[in-house]
Amino acid sequence: MKLPQEGYPPSADTWFTEYHSPNSGISLKVKRPLFSGESAFQKVEVFESKDFGNVLVLDGAIQTTEGDEFIYHEMLTHVPLCAHPGPRRVLIVGGGDGGCVREALRHPGVEEVTLVEIDQMVIDCARKFFPGISSGLNDPRVRVEVRDGVKFVRGRRRAFDVIIVDSTDPVAMASPLSRTSFFRAAKEALRPGGIYAAQAQGPVFEGRNMARFARAIRKVFPRTDLYLAGIPTYPGGIWGFALSARGRKRPSALPPRPLPRGAPVRFYSQEIHRAAFVLPPYIRDILG
Amino acid sequence: MKLPQEGYPPSADTWFTEYHSPNSGISLKVKRPLFSGESAFQKVEVFESKDFGNVLVLDGAIQTTEGDEFIYHEMLTHVPLCAHPGPRRVLIVGGGDGGCVREALRHPGVEEVTLVEIDQMVIDCARKFFPGISSGLNDPRVRVEVRDGVKFVRGRRRAFDVIIVDSTDPVAMASPLSRTSFFRAAKEALRPGGIYAAQAQGPVFEGRNMARFARAIRKVFPRTDLYLAGIPTYPGGIWGFALSARGRKRPSALPPRPLPRGAPVRFYSQEIHRAAFVLPPYIRDILG
Repeated sequence: MKLPQEGYPPSADTWFTEYHSPNSGISLKVKRPLFSGESAFQKVEVFESKDFGNVLVLDGAIQTTEGDEFIYHEMLTHVPLCAHPGPRRVLIVGGGDGGCVREALRHPGVEEVTLVEIDQMVIDCARKFFPGISSGLNDPRVRVEVRDGVKFVRGRRRAFDVIIVDSTDPVAMASPLSRTSFFRAAKEALRPGGIYAAQAQGPVFEGRNMARFARAIRKVFPRTDLYLAGIPTYPGGIWGFALSARGRKRPSALPPRPLPRGAPVRFYSQEIHRAAFVLPPYIRDILG
Repeated sequence: MKLPQEGYPPSADTWFTEYHSPNSGISLKVKRPLFSGESAFQKVEVFESKDFGNVLVLDGAIQTTEGDEFIYHEMLTHVPLCAHPGPRRVLIVGGGDGGCVREALRHPGVEEVTLVEIDQMVIDCARKFFPGISSGLNDPRVRVEVRDGVKFVRGRRRAFDVIIVDSTDPVAMASPLSRTSFFRAAKEALRPGGIYAAQAQGPVFEGRNMARFARAIRKVFPRTDLYLAGIPTYPGGIWGFALSARGRKRPSALPPRPLPRGAPVRFYSQEIHRAAFVLPPYIRDILG
């Protein structure tokens, strides 16, 4: 994260660089820094970029940009919701920017979306700097809980049709969300036929972590399939997601329900849903 | 292209940055610069990176890296060759690194591969610094012609089953390869049932060029379909290709022939072949 070191306010030539390894990174020119703060959990920064609009950065890693957020949020939300025959109650763990909430609300059958985000600062930044992403947070169907997702899920029984984990990468703070104890609690919290989805990191720079994540989740949800989407501002440009089913069928074989006609999606379609589960051999090899 | 300005030999902290726009770029740490030269056509540079092995750079743009070249070369070669029922004679225009040649030779029915590369310096660099990519260039089935691909194709009649255009982006030197006059000559040079494939740039930073390319090629090959692959070191991490057929069927509907069992592919499969033609709505919108 170069931005703070290079001084606020930036000169015309201030760049933000995210390093994906000690030897690779992507750089975006900073038009204007908008926010920099330290919450109880992480460093939170927002800047306006020239190519991707406003950018949310947590602990130096790009979380979302106005320019390509639609890919991540549509794929993390519509794949599980369309794989479920009739989702009514949805839980989103993390995802304080509200992008998954916005997408979940496009499903007319959804009666309640519960967002459990640990960090109030992320929600505040989303409301202020990402109005197009956080637009669903004030919907009457949405309940926002600012607390630890692990504690929230523990002890719930058959409460949700779909659980989506939209977390930062499972290092430090988010790692409890990648433990089998959490997966077990989430499985208990799903209704019969329930679906679980999570971001699963990227195969290019985090292949080993992605494989470890896949092994861990399959201990609890043996029927877990991974899927992919190309996201320009994420490491390596390609990102992984896991879809797990409580039921008997492989989640990749569940026929996707159509979205309502006219839903303003820009990445998701039923054909994309099916194609996203086709993994190239090199990624199958990474996953072992 | 920061490398030369920052001085040879580099310090431990020398980075190569490719700018995809004035406001975005990717950076790779340079372990060792290997070559820098100016041919009659372009600036040619090779360096060793830490994350992606040796990297070939033409006029400041990454053309190929040892780390992810397999994706580009497999998708640009096996998609057209597998879409053809029995390719015997293959023409590759550009592609002096030899990656498409190597992949074409994996098809046992292929009797002759003609490589027409305009720039001897690219071939020399490939032989010296990319032995794993250029390995097919000495195969007895391969004929290497160092000359202008546009002139080579002009006037040939029904000479090839598959023509692959592996060019730099169609600015300056490579632009004649994106003109309708070249597409017409290439169509004439195809045998009945022939297949034409070309890299078609990326949708993220070059969407307008990609759309212009698609419109131009469809004037000559109305049956042209675009397909995608995620390539980490290319702008936006996702790249476009065009597949055109002389025949009546849409090229995306041609059932892919299987590769020989045991072919050492790392990205291509028949399922990937089919999935690559599923374009997300935002890319369909870009293409108009």
